[in-house]
Amino acid sequence: MMLLLALAAIAAPVRGSAAPAPPPSPAATAYEAVTGDWRPIPDDELLVMRLAGGRTVTIRLAAWAAPLHVAQIRRLAAAHWWDAASVYRVQENWVAQWGDASEEKPLPAGVTPQVDPEFEITRFAPAVLMARGDPHARASGITADAWPVASDGAGHAWLPHCYAMVGVARDADPRSGSGAELFTPIGQSARRLDRNYTVVGRIIDGMANLSALARSDAPMGVYADPAQRTPIEWVRLASELPAAERPRFAYRAADNPRFAAAVRRRENPPPPTIGSGAIDVCEMPLEIRRLDAR
Amino acid sequence: MMLLLALAAIAAPVRGSAAPAPPPSPAATAYEAVTGDWRPIPDDELLVMRLAGGRTVTIRLAAWAAPLHVAQIRRLAAAHWWDAASVYRVQENWVAQWGDASEEKPLPAGVTPQVDPEFEITRFAPAVLMARGDPHARASGITADAWPVASDGAGHAWLPHCYAMVGVARDADPRSGSGAELFTPIGQSARRLDRNYTVVGRIIDGMANLSALARSDAPMGVYADPAQRTPIEWVRLASELPAAERPRFAYRAADNPRFAAAVRRRENPPPPTIGSGAIDVCEMPLEIRRLDAR
Repeated sequence: MMLLLALAAIAAPVRGSAAPAPPPSPAATAYEAVTGDWRPIPDDELLVMRLAGGRTVTIRLAAWAAPLHVAQIRRLAAAHWWDAASVYRVQENWVAQWGDASEEKPLPAGVTPQVDPEFEITRFAPAVLMARGDPHARASGITADAWPVASDGAGHAWLPHCYAMVGVARDADPRSGSGAELFTPIGQSARRLDRNYTVVGRIIDGMANLSALARSDAPMGVYADPAQRTPIEWVRLASELPAAERPRFAYRAADNPRFAAAVRRRENPPPPTIGSGAIDVCEMPLEIRRLDAR
Repeated sequence: MMLLLALAAIAAPVRGSAAPAPPPSPAATAYEAVTGDWRPIPDDELLVMRLAGGRTVTIRLAAWAAPLHVAQIRRLAAAHWWDAASVYRVQENWVAQWGDASEEKPLPAGVTPQVDPEFEITRFAPAVLMARGDPHARASGITADAWPVASDGAGHAWLPHCYAMVGVARDADPRSGSGAELFTPIGQSARRLDRNYTVVGRIIDGMANLSALARSDAPMGVYADPAQRTPIEWVRLASELPAAERPRFAYRAADNPRFAAAVRRRENPPPPTIGSGAIDVCEMPLEIRRLDAR
């Protein structure tokens, strides 16, 4: 479970021999999830990307935050548009980016080359507020549905570009994103992209299949040699996969005292660990559980 | 140049075809370094780690911040103690860690299994202050010698665990670190380790040789199978390498108006980019230039 791992990681980095903590029994503490805290993710919110070698990356889509872009992404998946696309950019401590490197592949019917930017969300309504803001946001928190959100305290709110969030790549024109080219931060969170790029989701499984890819030395991390790209075999919504092949995930909901207690514990770790009384919203583990057999 | 790349990255993530910006002529702007801003790093502050396959990672040591631990690290390198050691732990979005996975290799003469923790520094004296604090520090900034520093505003100061900083692994006992086992954050900065672990340096070259290593699925990211480890061929201080093989690097000093202007520009990017007026100290690129032919 991610939280357990994360708590173990507080004692970590450790020597090689350190034994991992045993898994807790459900609700053994005030900050662990109970069965009812786990909510299944609808099949049409799961975007499954199969890379060469059978490696899979699963993205949870945030249709509530970027409805225009997520609608385009669903159409692109339904049209099998990403089949035979690639991860063509991996820039050290910045982003991994995928789509059609040729930029010549026509978009399918119903997908426009540009849609209105969805850089911000209409409402800042976290279920749990972080103790303090951060350099990029006056306030931040986690929504009931386990999305990180940030606000400038002056009417603007957005999904922050935390590690593993998925953003829409674009050209200099803020309107130039379609959803066909996507990226995820693979190092220090790319917060200076907040409010400048549309965030459409978060990678909830298989992130290491992108974060551990070979970096490109070329300008901006775009592989100079096409042979360096990682081929994408296919991308589908889970709802379009045969029932037997559908991945099933649940997220840990944040609208309960157990999640709030988990945030407070992260902000104020038990002695002898010294804490600051706060963490960055991008540091809060958002737990995911696999419900299928795999 | 890292800053140029970083500024390019503000326009990024972009479509595959985006042309990188041309390199600027020196001092073309108020925020670029001039020749005198580049200061060579002494050979005995450069720790060179050669991994299998000829991949090299170069660490700049912070003797000023952790003199006891850096003295031990210099003795370990002089004794060739890390030769045939390994990178034995790579935990997704957490750390890569290296040293003697067996934990049975005796330490060389003059190296003790424990030294007093050096979790904090004696003085918070940045040459440039960041515009705002962050969830982990009331104030932060960059020293004249280009080290990130943080403070709680109440007399405690430390080197933050930013991406690519190098920390001393230990057991639960805060006194249990020797410097023989080291780690670096490979994802979101590991700031909750601040003031709990001793920071001894920063990876200034070859970080991708650690950040792109295959992640371990085992508890806490320690490879379950020794065959998964990345062998370390040798570790040496540059001062102990034959002159012809010595890497030579310079850092961009921060005690000048050009670096201050670069920080302010990061905090307040030019339109149409929307900024928050601040960045996290871990987001400020600390530029390094290679001085040798390689």
